[in-house]
Amino acid sequence: MRILGIDPGLNTTGYGVLEFARVGESLRDSHSRFGETRPRVPRLVEAGVVRGKSNAELAERVKEIHDGVADVIATLKPEVLAIEELYSHYDRPTTAILMGHARGVIVLAAAEAGINVVSYRATQIKKTITGNGHAAKWQMQEAIRRELNLPKLPEPPDVADALAIALCHCYLSRFENVAEKTGG
Amino acid sequence: MRILGIDPGLNTTGYGVLEFARVGESLRDSHSRFGETRPRVPRLVEAGVVRGKSNAELAERVKEIHDGVADVIATLKPEVLAIEELYSHYDRPTTAILMGHARGVIVLAAAEAGINVVSYRATQIKKTITGNGHAAKWQMQEAIRRELNLPKLPEPPDVADALAIALCHCYLSRFENVAEKTGG
Repeated sequence: MRILGIDPGLNTTGYGVLEFARVGESLRDSHSRFGETRPRVPRLVEAGVVRGKSNAELAERVKEIHDGVADVIATLKPEVLAIEELYSHYDRPTTAILMGHARGVIVLAAAEAGINVVSYRATQIKKTITGNGHAAKWQMQEAIRRELNLPKLPEPPDVADALAIALCHCYLSRFENVAEKTGG
Repeated sequence: MRILGIDPGLNTTGYGVLEFARVGESLRDSHSRFGETRPRVPRLVEAGVVRGKSNAELAERVKEIHDGVADVIATLKPEVLAIEELYSHYDRPTTAILMGHARGVIVLAAAEAGINVVSYRATQIKKTITGNGHAAKWQMQEAIRRELNLPKLPEPPDVADALAIALCHCYLSRFENVAEKTGG
């Protein structure tokens, strides 16, 4: 199972792809010639940022974001795109609406590639990763570094946020296969 | 000159294409075999709505809007896309952010087709069309009906709003060619 986490923004959109085997899913990758197994704990495949040119027209910037995310999907072939729910950015309306533009072209890229989109609230992501729905930013970053066994914190923060969303989906969808099998 | 006006919405996106000759532009259409002339007053080419399925997932809905607008651009070949500025929908933040999603994929369709995007504030559109920046909805609709010489009001209201934006751009860009020629 590959998950693409996205932290949308018109200037910098963070992305992170994680891979893991769900419980009940065969650990042996049928595509591997050498009996390589899929990890039970999430493994980082790739992370980075897609940037909109900050001085370009809005239309040009959303095109760069759309094309960048479409490229990540085509290259890394995730099965799911995980993104924060939209009801959490009310402090600055203009920022929220601009983020809406970025989010719109990102979920469009998912629909065009035929992959599902799942959303989580910010507090749900924090609680799933640290046990605390109001964890501080550094606590989140440290939890991500530890869980993914990274030598240092992912940078910039947009990448850490994208990895947090992907990790949240890993944990919350971990038992999905079992649930399906037991009819739960 | 062909202008595509768009009134973005996740449920219903109105569109309207107007055609007119700018001052300083030859009235004779070089593509016309019979010496057909371009109208000095804006003429309605086509108007209608693009609908996102109201019960579909957000990603599916933005795809329908994107594809619908891309289809209008490919078919009617406007040179400009005119759309309301985004700083005017603060009453309901969620509606504003969702509108941002629609607006994002619409300006993406323009960028993909290589046509320019121009934006006007709601008050600017009202003032240009009726002389009053705070005109009532019925005053706007009646002005549009009269200016475009339509037998009755365009329906639904999203279409009237799209035509208002296109008409605003017609009036405000009318003298552009002259300005360019005189170096203004």
